[in-house]
Amino acid sequence: MSNDDSHTLNIAYLGPEASFSHQAAIEVFSPSTNTLHPLPSFSAIFSAIQISTHDFAVIPIENSTNGSVVQVLDLLSQCGLDSSAQFPDIEVVAEYYLPVHHCLFVAQNSDSSSKEIRTIYTHPQVWGQCNRYLSAHFPPNQVERIDVGSTSAAAQLVSRETNGSNAAIASKLAGQRHNLVRLAENIEDEPGSNTTRFFVVRNRNSKHARTTGLEQYLSSRTGQSQRYKSLITFTIPHTKPGALADALAVFKQYHFNLTSIDTRPSRKRNWQYVFFVECEEADNGGTRGIHGEEGNLQRLLADLQRFTESLQHLGRFQDQLQREDGIQSKT
Amino acid sequence: MSNDDSHTLNIAYLGPEASFSHQAAIEVFSPSTNTLHPLPSFSAIFSAIQISTHDFAVIPIENSTNGSVVQVLDLLSQCGLDSSAQFPDIEVVAEYYLPVHHCLFVAQNSDSSSKEIRTIYTHPQVWGQCNRYLSAHFPPNQVERIDVGSTSAAAQLVSRETNGSNAAIASKLAGQRHNLVRLAENIEDEPGSNTTRFFVVRNRNSKHARTTGLEQYLSSRTGQSQRYKSLITFTIPHTKPGALADALAVFKQYHFNLTSIDTRPSRKRNWQYVFFVECEEADNGGTRGIHGEEGNLQRLLADLQRFTESLQHLGRFQDQLQREDGIQSKT
Repeated sequence: MSNDDSHTLNIAYLGPEASFSHQAAIEVFSPSTNTLHPLPSFSAIFSAIQISTHDFAVIPIENSTNGSVVQVLDLLSQCGLDSSAQFPDIEVVAEYYLPVHHCLFVAQNSDSSSKEIRTIYTHPQVWGQCNRYLSAHFPPNQVERIDVGSTSAAAQLVSRETNGSNAAIASKLAGQRHNLVRLAENIEDEPGSNTTRFFVVRNRNSKHARTTGLEQYLSSRTGQSQRYKSLITFTIPHTKPGALADALAVFKQYHFNLTSIDTRPSRKRNWQYVFFVECEEADNGGTRGIHGEEGNLQRLLADLQRFTESLQHLGRFQDQLQREDGIQSKT
Repeated sequence: MSNDDSHTLNIAYLGPEASFSHQAAIEVFSPSTNTLHPLPSFSAIFSAIQISTHDFAVIPIENSTNGSVVQVLDLLSQCGLDSSAQFPDIEVVAEYYLPVHHCLFVAQNSDSSSKEIRTIYTHPQVWGQCNRYLSAHFPPNQVERIDVGSTSAAAQLVSRETNGSNAAIASKLAGQRHNLVRLAENIEDEPGSNTTRFFVVRNRNSKHARTTGLEQYLSSRTGQSQRYKSLITFTIPHTKPGALADALAVFKQYHFNLTSIDTRPSRKRNWQYVFFVECEEADNGGTRGIHGEEGNLQRLLADLQRFTESLQHLGRFQDQLQREDGIQSKT
């Protein structure tokens, strides 16, 4: 499906259509000039980028209320130029922040009363995002909560029901698409502040220049920060006490500010972890082009290697966090 | 329900009966001398300990394959001697490692063939723990996966079905309790190495001495490490670059080895995080009693406060990790 000779790019996102991932993909890659493809799972998306059937993918990494998307972290731990990596050629080339609003929908043919609702369908991560609204209006002992693969699938499921006792929590986009009746909107715990952060990934061996296809998105952001962040994953030897503190001290030494740290089981050895660190370059100086990897970054990575068992640099991308909106960095 | 004058303790665990939490509670607190109570949710358990209707609770914190139990982390971030904390008096007094084995069960009256299975029920975290077996035998496009509140609830649900197309993934204990037929056992990805770590928590104002009720469990572990770990939670000011590296350097300075680090959204400000750090004292010297909090720990906490916005010491407990079994520490 790769279109190296035309400007039509194939973009993968987690389906079904009208998911939040779809919305993010639409906002980064205009559907008028690109083809957007819903794929059935995160692992299908990573495979599609690794074997280059698709040019880019837009994948959620973290929600401001609910935390990290651990399935994506586990797949990212399989990326990087390591002989044993499942997806050695995947790299992160951009990030994108999508504000998330949830609505409660029922089918057109139902009596549109929330009193009758006995079952609510949505993606499992949404329960935690709408905890206050659900506890007040649909406590678990009165209303059954059923997990489905996506908020869009929940909307589709309810649109097919003739039973007025079913409801879905989904986006406006999904509700519109499936002709549902909206009973409530912005039911998330912190309306206006619930945001999902996405990564844009691609195959680093692509014939395209690294950000071809992303120019429109990136040029629309030029008013913002021109700072760059890197995503680095590593494991540390279990025999060295203090190795994590030593590794993190290297970032400080090179004036890289840690903006995020996450851990997941390595799945190679019990209670050994993969660390996911994002760090912001202190000063991009004259090297504002996304092509110009800082020599400073290379020196940091070389130094870091002294304290790590495995080490992967998974990408360098513009920081899109709008701190003037009250969104804050981690450190 | 608190029994300050007798030796019968009331122990809370996440129900229903025959859950892995039940099994862990049985192994820490003998049911012959204590009363074990299934509670409906983690938040109900934290409330029960805070208001002292129960003496102890046994709660899962982390699985070696699947990572942290984020709902428990979020509740722990509400603990500590902070005026705004929801559960200011809860402290961690012990940890416990339970090896986890999953089995596939069908009802007695079904034809006991895995060919007929169309739907599998289990706790959402179990899908990730049995990924290889499920992908090979029950791919998602052929068999529907339905989340239920616990593996024990899955077993109960299947025991009531007359339809032979339903199966449950649950523990041997749950299968026995609900008279199910076992089709497969040890279906977890890494048989023998899948382990769940539990915390034992209690109210720090309890009239009981801090570990009364735990003596039997702790005395059974005396052959093991006498090292102590502490659980510390903190947030860091967003205005100070490098604050996380500075905070972690304090642990190193006091020779405390970081054994675990986790983050969750603070839910107070977007992209601000609560850090959960566990650290092992370098040398317990003469202070092996669990009552004798190291002066060293107090000095570490005082120093740490220079780099943190909020800081809570949530407990000090014996390290139960059996490194001789190939289980390794994080750093």
